[in-house]
Amino acid sequence: MQRILSTQLASHVHETVTIAGWVHRRRLLKSVAFLIVRDAEGLSQVVVTDQSILEGLTEESVVEVTATVTPNEQAPGKVELTEPVIRVLSAVGVQLPFELHRPELTASLPTQLDHAALALRHPARRAALRVAAAATEGFRAALGEQRFVEIQTPKIVGSATESGANVFAIDYFGRPGYLAQSPQFYKQMMVGVFERVFEVGPVFRAEPSDTARHLSQYTSLDAEMGFIEDHRDVMAALTRTLTVMMETITMRAGLAIRSVPGEIPAVHFREALKIAGAPEGEPDLAPAHERALGEWARKEHGSEFVYVTGYPMRKRPFYTHPDPADPAYSNGFDLLFKGLEIVTGGQRLHRYEDYVRVLAHQTEPYEGYLEAFRCGMPPHGGWAIGLERFVARLMNIKNVREVTAFPRDLHRITP
Amino acid sequence: MQRILSTQLASHVHETVTIAGWVHRRRLLKSVAFLIVRDAEGLSQVVVTDQSILEGLTEESVVEVTATVTPNEQAPGKVELTEPVIRVLSAVGVQLPFELHRPELTASLPTQLDHAALALRHPARRAALRVAAAATEGFRAALGEQRFVEIQTPKIVGSATESGANVFAIDYFGRPGYLAQSPQFYKQMMVGVFERVFEVGPVFRAEPSDTARHLSQYTSLDAEMGFIEDHRDVMAALTRTLTVMMETITMRAGLAIRSVPGEIPAVHFREALKIAGAPEGEPDLAPAHERALGEWARKEHGSEFVYVTGYPMRKRPFYTHPDPADPAYSNGFDLLFKGLEIVTGGQRLHRYEDYVRVLAHQTEPYEGYLEAFRCGMPPHGGWAIGLERFVARLMNIKNVREVTAFPRDLHRITP
Repeated sequence: MQRILSTQLASHVHETVTIAGWVHRRRLLKSVAFLIVRDAEGLSQVVVTDQSILEGLTEESVVEVTATVTPNEQAPGKVELTEPVIRVLSAVGVQLPFELHRPELTASLPTQLDHAALALRHPARRAALRVAAAATEGFRAALGEQRFVEIQTPKIVGSATESGANVFAIDYFGRPGYLAQSPQFYKQMMVGVFERVFEVGPVFRAEPSDTARHLSQYTSLDAEMGFIEDHRDVMAALTRTLTVMMETITMRAGLAIRSVPGEIPAVHFREALKIAGAPEGEPDLAPAHERALGEWARKEHGSEFVYVTGYPMRKRPFYTHPDPADPAYSNGFDLLFKGLEIVTGGQRLHRYEDYVRVLAHQTEPYEGYLEAFRCGMPPHGGWAIGLERFVARLMNIKNVREVTAFPRDLHRITP
Repeated sequence: MQRILSTQLASHVHETVTIAGWVHRRRLLKSVAFLIVRDAEGLSQVVVTDQSILEGLTEESVVEVTATVTPNEQAPGKVELTEPVIRVLSAVGVQLPFELHRPELTASLPTQLDHAALALRHPARRAALRVAAAATEGFRAALGEQRFVEIQTPKIVGSATESGANVFAIDYFGRPGYLAQSPQFYKQMMVGVFERVFEVGPVFRAEPSDTARHLSQYTSLDAEMGFIEDHRDVMAALTRTLTVMMETITMRAGLAIRSVPGEIPAVHFREALKIAGAPEGEPDLAPAHERALGEWARKEHGSEFVYVTGYPMRKRPFYTHPDPADPAYSNGFDLLFKGLEIVTGGQRLHRYEDYVRVLAHQTEPYEGYLEAFRCGMPPHGGWAIGLERFVARLMNIKNVREVTAFPRDLHRITP
């Protein structure tokens, strides 16, 4: 008999059906016993009259149940399965390190991460990964609609040129190689090919930061677009993209979230310092300043999002385009979401001479990248969204490790 | 004025419009000169009466052209731009290493790869990357429709356990680490979470093979699904996926390709040896055998695809599920496309005891992976498609480097 899902039971009342899944929980009451079976979509309640049957059905064993769908107002989904014939597909013979059926996992986070294969089955952990999948789906849909083309770029690079520090070194057939910290150079080069490109992929940071928001591998949602006037065209494309991402998350993962405003409020960096009560002349925003700006945007504009534009040039990477009217400040921006930076973007330099100047003629390690500019590049810009930070912030989860399937950090390289 | 694309010109006849793009070619005829401008979608012909204007408009310079759309039966798209006002956004001041306007790039492949930022702008190279983007889009759409959930898994792993050889070693905060050769272990573990999962991501092979089909980084289209009867359920899901991929490629990249048959012919390995004229008892198919099978499938079944099932267990990885009726042979399969293996898949072991047995109790390096089986796993299986090989085969391109934006191999780590 063709297996159906837990969510389909309600449309099969009084029929005999087959479901399959994991034993989520056994509940022994006085006169009746329940087997709760978990599948990819939800839970099913199976009524077992002979309690001795339950003994061998240890939690997380995989079972197939053929039974009658019977209405029961008290049951989840208002139906339960009665008169079951249960077949064990895979029996669990060990004591599990923690229980999955409670609303929250009670094991410590390191224990959960050590036992990821089990912990990720918990509905709360699973929900976060579904949100991440929906976010990437929405990202791609929004960019496809705006005629961006998907690219795949190298994760192994020959020199540590993008920032110089915090890169992982690899042995590349006896030569030194490095793991890419971002697809920045490649996505810019590809603007010369497709005008508008995006990539969803892993990036690597050998940061010795042991915090709740740093991972040594994370998923970067990158986009880059040509033929712009300035960074405001990039912000408009990003705003549209976030709107579709949020809609997709609501649709696919059922998360009730506030919609993205048609226009996200934007403040210049100098203004942002004032709003946050930071000293004039600060070169960057501290986490407390970002939180204050998040509060301000919520109160003044009813928005969970706020753009900060015009960051000082000295704190932005070498390829950043200055504000032509005020060259100490940049055409770069950050997007804060609930008071945390989740996107960095901006307009880039596009003239070869400008790169030669900012690199002080030390162009040799950048040859392959600079060729794009030597061979003609339009004004362009783009952004990068850190997927795990975005999902954690969206779900009000403090530690990015809770929204990452198998996180990698300073201390962790397994499982 | 809002810029329009080359493909939109025909619907603006007699209007004044603005286009933008790269100078693809200058053509000087006796009485008239043409500027051919390339944008992301195609070419536009601009009529220039004062030939001296063309001197500064070197190839690959980025220009914006405001002009009148005028019908001309001889022009590409049957329109051309007349009375142009040309603004240079970015001037090219160097001699280009090769020309882009010929039907094929005449530079050698190494020269093209050295100058990837320029070579990838050639319409033929660009077309291959569009096909790759469409293939991944179709892959995801097909799997979403079949209720697979997208995952992101670690590319840095703690031990070289999957095959043991040909891995890149990295320095992971002073400890040894390795680049993942595939998401195999992780996608299986995630079957315990979502039942059906997929991933599109880079995989790394430190293979010292200097051939037209080996890359040290390639894009793997991975899927894994639970609650199967055997490998035939996996093949059915893969066939459906390939159908959508081919449809998406036709739709998005305009490639005229034969559709995937509703049912792809399948032959058992022993039968395949006979068809290919190979000696009985061979453990694997040589490239010549694969080509012979491709010919056979085309002639006998009118299919460019053919499944070979039941490969001998001794040539398949340790997690392969044997054929219960004939345990020297596996429930593993390869899919050949035009006589070349482009997909490997099969049913996997799902019982913990089976893993302990095949690993001869040397389970320690596999702990995190094996926990999934110890905690209950359904019968499952999956596949991996090598994106670059698939695209190359589809477009009859011999070298995978021609369909990869910035290939990495034994000799190449730049640009």
